[in-house]
Amino acid sequence: MRPDEQRVAWEGRLFDVVVERWGGHEREIVRHPGAVAIVAVDADDRLVLVRQRREAARDELLELPAGTREPDEDPLATAQRELREETGLTGGEWRELATFWTSPGFVAERMTLFLAEGTVEGEAAPDEDEDVELVHVPVNELARRLNEIEDAKTLAGILLFLRERGL
Amino acid sequence: MRPDEQRVAWEGRLFDVVVERWGGHEREIVRHPGAVAIVAVDADDRLVLVRQRREAARDELLELPAGTREPDEDPLATAQRELREETGLTGGEWRELATFWTSPGFVAERMTLFLAEGTVEGEAAPDEDEDVELVHVPVNELARRLNEIEDAKTLAGILLFLRERGL
Repeated sequence: MRPDEQRVAWEGRLFDVVVERWGGHEREIVRHPGAVAIVAVDADDRLVLVRQRREAARDELLELPAGTREPDEDPLATAQRELREETGLTGGEWRELATFWTSPGFVAERMTLFLAEGTVEGEAAPDEDEDVELVHVPVNELARRLNEIEDAKTLAGILLFLRERGL
Repeated sequence: MRPDEQRVAWEGRLFDVVVERWGGHEREIVRHPGAVAIVAVDADDRLVLVRQRREAARDELLELPAGTREPDEDPLATAQRELREETGLTGGEWRELATFWTSPGFVAERMTLFLAEGTVEGEAAPDEDEDVELVHVPVNELARRLNEIEDAKTLAGILLFLRERGL
């Protein structure tokens, strides 16, 4: 599945915009390298979330730890690196929960969602432009805190996890 | 919460790109009018999904009916219009299930998710550039078909709905 024509309309540091012609239709698409997110549970059976300023939302949001893929980096390697940098968590048992497009109408961002259970606390090393607060939520309180979540990947990830646990 | 400076870097038909300065940091943001999606259940207790070509994903995806908000249009009005146009479904009992950002790291797209139960079939009127196949899934088969879903809003919406139904 390929467009008849495409041109780069704008080049940024995080993403580009391409305009593509598909038959008689033109599509504006945000091209992005892809991302990962992690449902990370620590040894005390607490989900580890991050609260951070999201300029696009003009708000602070409570989210799963997540990050952008580097070119040619394996999604699992990205996820383990991002989790360590953002939260200090390492180790644990890892597996893939789902892979999805975040907004496939106009954004080419594919996201792989991992579950990491039994992770161990260590020292975080966030990027200098990330101001991240860690929020620990006991797994048995997650269901009644769903209404605090305003981020699609986080909602999908927590709901998949609750379903797996039968909660 | 406002940036110190902002400039429009690219203007498209569906979205714009703005570059904002927040203190010492620059943010590239996709500005979008917002969207709606609908968990639509018909009178035979089937979820109505749409399968369509998504150029950004280079694939056909199975998704909740959804659409972009018009300026100043109420999200419920958008949702009822989009559901009727894409699927022909009208009527039923409507309520809001959740509101979330689809990819808040760089996309300013806020989405309102509705549940519409007991909707009635009619004639669809899709946009001329939409080639949409309707897919009806009995509610009691949804849980085992979750692995067919590769779209974040659809995954979140179906999981919220299954949770409400205790399925």
